[in-house]
Amino acid sequence: MILTDSLLDFFLTTRKRTEQICEPLEIEDYVVQPIVDVSPPKWHLGHSSWFFEEFILKPHGRDYKIFDADFSFVFNSYYETVGKRVVRSDRGNLSRPSVEKVYAYRDHVTHGIENLFSQNPDPGLYDILEIGIHHEKQHQELLLTDIKYILGNNPLLPVYSDDFQEHRTETHQQDWIAMEEGIYEIGHASDDFCYDNELGRHKVYLQPYEIANKLVTNSDYLAFMDAGGYQKFDLWHAEGWDWVNQNDISAPLYWHQIDGEWHHYTLNGLQKINGNAPVTHISYYEAFAFAQWKGCRLPTEFEWEASQEFFSWGKRWEWTESAYLPYPNYTKADGALGEYNGKFMVNQKVLRGGSVATAENHTRPTYRNFFQTGLRWQFTSLRLTK
Amino acid sequence: MILTDSLLDFFLTTRKRTEQICEPLEIEDYVVQPIVDVSPPKWHLGHSSWFFEEFILKPHGRDYKIFDADFSFVFNSYYETVGKRVVRSDRGNLSRPSVEKVYAYRDHVTHGIENLFSQNPDPGLYDILEIGIHHEKQHQELLLTDIKYILGNNPLLPVYSDDFQEHRTETHQQDWIAMEEGIYEIGHASDDFCYDNELGRHKVYLQPYEIANKLVTNSDYLAFMDAGGYQKFDLWHAEGWDWVNQNDISAPLYWHQIDGEWHHYTLNGLQKINGNAPVTHISYYEAFAFAQWKGCRLPTEFEWEASQEFFSWGKRWEWTESAYLPYPNYTKADGALGEYNGKFMVNQKVLRGGSVATAENHTRPTYRNFFQTGLRWQFTSLRLTK
Amino acid sequence: MILTDSLLDFFLTTRKRTEQICEPLEIEDYVVQPIVDVSPPKWHLGHSSWFFEEFILKPHGRDYKIFDADFSFVFNSYYETVGKRVVRSDRGNLSRPSVEKVYAYRDHVTHGIENLFSQNPDPGLYDILEIGIHHEKQHQELLLTDIKYILGNNPLLPVYSDDFQEHRTETHQQDWIAMEEGIYEIGHASDDFCYDNELGRHKVYLQPYEIANKLVTNSDYLAFMDAGGYQKFDLWHAEGWDWVNQNDISAPLYWHQIDGEWHHYTLNGLQKINGNAPVTHISYYEAFAFAQWKGCRLPTEFEWEASQEFFSWGKRWEWTESAYLPYPNYTKADGALGEYNGKFMVNQKVLRGGSVATAENHTRPTYRNFFQTGLRWQFTSLRLTK
Amino acid sequence: MILTDSLLDFFLTTRKRTEQICEPLEIEDYVVQPIVDVSPPKWHLGHSSWFFEEFILKPHGRDYKIFDADFSFVFNSYYETVGKRVVRSDRGNLSRPSVEKVYAYRDHVTHGIENLFSQNPDPGLYDILEIGIHHEKQHQELLLTDIKYILGNNPLLPVYSDDFQEHRTETHQQDWIAMEEGIYEIGHASDDFCYDNELGRHKVYLQPYEIANKLVTNSDYLAFMDAGGYQKFDLWHAEGWDWVNQNDISAPLYWHQIDGEWHHYTLNGLQKINGNAPVTHISYYEAFAFAQWKGCRLPTEFEWEASQEFFSWGKRWEWTESAYLPYPNYTKADGALGEYNGKFMVNQKVLRGGSVATAENHTRPTYRNFFQTGLRWQFTSLRLTK
Repeated sequence: MILTDSLLDFFLTTRKRTEQICEPLEIEDYVVQPIVDVSPPKWHLGHSSWFFEEFILKPHGRDYKIFDADFSFVFNSYYETVGKRVVRSDRGNLSRPSVEKVYAYRDHVTHGIENLFSQNPDPGLYDILEIGIHHEKQHQELLLTDIKYILGNNPLLPVYSDDFQEHRTETHQQDWIAMEEGIYEIGHASDDFCYDNELGRHKVYLQPYEIANKLVTNSDYLAFMDAGGYQKFDLWHAEGWDWVNQNDISAPLYWHQIDGEWHHYTLNGLQKINGNAPVTHISYYEAFAFAQWKGCRLPTEFEWEASQEFFSWGKRWEWTESAYLPYPNYTKADGALGEYNGKFMVNQKVLRGGSVATAENHTRPTYRNFFQTGLRWQFTSLRLTK
Repeated sequence: MILTDSLLDFFLTTRKRTEQICEPLEIEDYVVQPIVDVSPPKWHLGHSSWFFEEFILKPHGRDYKIFDADFSFVFNSYYETVGKRVVRSDRGNLSRPSVEKVYAYRDHVTHGIENLFSQNPDPGLYDILEIGIHHEKQHQELLLTDIKYILGNNPLLPVYSDDFQEHRTETHQQDWIAMEEGIYEIGHASDDFCYDNELGRHKVYLQPYEIANKLVTNSDYLAFMDAGGYQKFDLWHAEGWDWVNQNDISAPLYWHQIDGEWHHYTLNGLQKINGNAPVTHISYYEAFAFAQWKGCRLPTEFEWEASQEFFSWGKRWEWTESAYLPYPNYTKADGALGEYNGKFMVNQKVLRGGSVATAENHTRPTYRNFFQTGLRWQFTSLRLTK
Repeated sequence: MILTDSLLDFFLTTRKRTEQICEPLEIEDYVVQPIVDVSPPKWHLGHSSWFFEEFILKPHGRDYKIFDADFSFVFNSYYETVGKRVVRSDRGNLSRPSVEKVYAYRDHVTHGIENLFSQNPDPGLYDILEIGIHHEKQHQELLLTDIKYILGNNPLLPVYSDDFQEHRTETHQQDWIAMEEGIYEIGHASDDFCYDNELGRHKVYLQPYEIANKLVTNSDYLAFMDAGGYQKFDLWHAEGWDWVNQNDISAPLYWHQIDGEWHHYTLNGLQKINGNAPVTHISYYEAFAFAQWKGCRLPTEFEWEASQEFFSWGKRWEWTESAYLPYPNYTKADGALGEYNGKFMVNQKVLRGGSVATAENHTRPTYRNFFQTGLRWQFTSLRLTK
Repeated sequence: MILTDSLLDFFLTTRKRTEQICEPLEIEDYVVQPIVDVSPPKWHLGHSSWFFEEFILKPHGRDYKIFDADFSFVFNSYYETVGKRVVRSDRGNLSRPSVEKVYAYRDHVTHGIENLFSQNPDPGLYDILEIGIHHEKQHQELLLTDIKYILGNNPLLPVYSDDFQEHRTETHQQDWIAMEEGIYEIGHASDDFCYDNELGRHKVYLQPYEIANKLVTNSDYLAFMDAGGYQKFDLWHAEGWDWVNQNDISAPLYWHQIDGEWHHYTLNGLQKINGNAPVTHISYYEAFAFAQWKGCRLPTEFEWEASQEFFSWGKRWEWTESAYLPYPNYTKADGALGEYNGKFMVNQKVLRGGSVATAENHTRPTYRNFFQTGLRWQFTSLRLTK
């Protein structure tokens, strides 16, 4: 439980950090949406403000003046409870509101929250504020990965920043961590913040297994490519094989072969592949096929959580074999906040860990990220299990 | 383990049963494919023969003469190991081979097997023969459900048979079976035939739960419809809600409202809804939304298996909440037979039980059926859990 | 104007001819629809009967008993005036009514007409009867080309008939017919039957031009292919170039390269290309690109009509450069018959002549056929102009 | 023929005018592409500069330094001769080059041309310069209509300018101009600039006809809507009827019904419909259906050209019944400039006249504009003929 003063600080720091992420952008970079999964940065800035306005300031703000009534429509993402919204595929078609106006909206909302919480509001609001902050931190990660996609989709391949360290290497020896058969407890246990999907804590029975102390590296993955991994149907799910063929996939996202040598687009611009860095920007299908090729498999999310204290993690989101499902005794909140997680619990896979794009202190051993099996624009990777 | 003599009997009975299912058809009914999930009956007759020819007679038949070299291409379903194949969506565009020729092919293969197995073949072939028989029994179920779709898609709504009993009622009192927390063993245990996806047997830890002794009935489901179930977004997964809206779904498959009263197409022709019969032809999305509306949920496949001895089942395939995933220590066979199950273990849901269309003795407590979440042409239903 | 007795004869001969065309078919061949432009033969048989039932027997038949009320829905093609209809793309999904029943329907309608017209009906009905006969003769041509597509789409490539002469050669010397500048009269002039789209007769002014006395042959077309015609964008319309690339077109329809030599599927089965036969099964885009490559062009329909008496024609439908538009003073009939031609007068090209599939005496110098620019399953070809 | 000095002036004025059109825009408005037919303003600015660079400065510029080698790829529209290009549908996904950089590119090219043409270049270059200027004037029109679409697609419906006069009314009495049967000459005759598609001048024979001295007004069109014009299939082409139903069309583009009254979005913002202004933003299908409803038809482009001196025109582009085809003796230029017009001469309709968005002095009686039949974002309208 965070004290109320420090919660307001936490709020202000988070708001500021979001804006820092956007500092290197040109105005034009804020606007476009090259694929439907990516949102324009302008939209992230607006939507994370909308969340505070919609769930705190509109219902509870004293003398709060709505910035622009239309924004309720423009910046709603998927909350059916709240009313209609711009369809996701249309976000990149809107030139207005301008970036300048969106920043004015952010300031307006930030001051509204500051104002409200400096006047001892209803204690129940602190919980919503905390969710809102964590919501914004999730969007910080999306901001970074969406910016990478937007810049990397330009034929000119511009640099985002020379400082950003995407590729922290894994140079230690690969070893197997042996885990014993038995009952393990899974799910969030403390009083600290967590999402509803990490509850309720419950027991699972695990068979004996071994899990790698190291992520798969670019060198490992190049060996898979060189061995014809993308041509061997028997390594793939039927659905994955269709995905490979329909999308002509032959390498991770952002990889370009130039004069016979593999490069990849990074937030530092185009670079040669570093063999010691963990492979990234691969789909679940690719992670699965690689594991098959090694005669191994992906861990379940339970295996991952039970063993995570024995290896270091946090550079890449790690695909698991587990489908994203509710835990026993999962209950969703009433109203719009109940739409946060539960309604996505079908046909997605759980990812565990965190990545170089994850906001500081945002992830934890019980954190459950989730994506559809064909998506690659996050900093995804894999850890072998057997 | 079935004795070899009785295995040949089992084979011959199964072959005959397949043909009996087709007896009421006109030649034209054998040919069409109204949706991609449905295959023409002619194709099922050919494909179940192809399986025996491809995996037993071609490699092991003494003096076996291939009936027609092109059939290897025409009747392959998805076995990439075996070579190329007619794409699934094209099955209904082929007028040749004719139905008469397909029956001649069946006879040819049946006699080929009879011949081979009356001469003490390699004992290893019995295992493949057994798989082939079970494979054909799976296709018997598909034959019936595909025939229902083909006939029910004709504006003339012809009767398949007056005798077929689709709607065995559930008239007993609804009760909850209470199951205790603890470790349960899951998966096939005996020496009898089972599919690779039912292995290996392993322990799971279940939290306490209650499961209904009765399937949801048409009356129950009508109440859901009357309460606006198809209009309440908060009962549905986001993906399910899109499915409802994109496909304009407002009732189970085959339901027609005529002069204000609900009817459904059955293998006996168009009939009024029987309130006491279990609801059927619903997707996973609908099963989930119904359960949400009742304040309940679907069982996991483990909960179902652990409690199945306490209720009767077998009239409907029952959707579970479990994603179709490999059990711990699952290993797939080498070669083409390894493509049987494993490659579908992503983005599908497990169904447990069996249905009025299931071949006799074909299902068992550990049997795992699986489908994509939007499919409805099987005799699907649901059982509530809490 | 045909005398009334001979009109009934004409009717009966036409009905019989339609059935003769179907004689070589298996029942299965009557049912399928491999592409949306092709209709199942069963449907042609029913639809050409429906026309007589709907426009003559239902409104005017004395004591006529409707064969099956549902057929009005099943066999309507596009007449919105008449009511709803099975969507075109669904014709191949209907197994019922059976072929046997469709033939019974044909007989019923044939007798109904015979009966009615042997009793001195309203003289106005003769005009509708005459349209109905010509309508059926149009469907005879479609029947043949649709049968060719259905059979040619089977991997087994069955023979339709050993007698059918698809490829009457053009062995005479290629010459240019020089036509003088001036005013020409276009459109139907006599009292004989014609379609509304051939009226009203009117004057056009033509600039001087030369037109070939011979169709382009397979040899000519192979030279175009060998010269890289399908790879040279500057020969194609932008839309044609997209069509080539999106559909991976590199030869006319039905052409197969086997061991380095070009063959084509014909109604006599698979055969080597005959260099002297006119090329066929090409789209307007291909005809245009070929003409560009020769430094020539396609004739307009007016140029074709003005010069047609100086060359022989009738083996192939000939693409023209003219868009299908109404003639000056074109007026469409009231009611459903007004839907016959006029509503297709946009984004189609006129073809002139006739083909080996055209019913006897069905075409004439003023006859206007029309198709979308990408269609190839008719016996299409081209004649150069400059 | 324009004198060389004044041609350079004409060039500079044109370049300036393009930039004036963009003055009211926010940077964000330059970037988006809400439908594939609309291009981002940034792209128009770059592409009209690219044309001069590619066809004049690169091959002929003395000491000309290419601004950025990648722009050849980024700003090519459809010239296959020139090399590869960004696919049209991707133009709105590119955030870079920035708007600032594109303006720098424009300046660079403008100075390059100024420099080259102040040094007595090869006289042949003046022809290409003239085409380039007219090309840019065409893009000025597209700029305005694309800007209207971009702004009108924003839920906030921003004003482009308070001064722009979209809706000059037609208040004179509707009369019919009677034209005599006979031979008329069509096509460009003088030495002034024209496009290749206006040549060669040739004779046509026209039947007698009458053409309205006035465009159809909003009041006329509202009467058509009130009479159920969008619900009466018999007024429409089959293809038009599909277009109406698939796109749910029930009014011209930009029309909004607010509290029972019709408004439309204009470059001055949202306004009530003015009954006396000519209707605009309708497709060919709608123009045709309206004319059918009035018992009239659209003129051919020849009828329009032959009678245009007897009525005033230039407020709206007017749909004609004529397909866009080459004139007799049309010859296309060699190389890339040959791709300017000829390759679009299929499945489009000719529009005649000009519109409020047309650049000054850009259109003339022989000018042929052309679009696909379903497009509506130009200032299109219709004039009745009978």
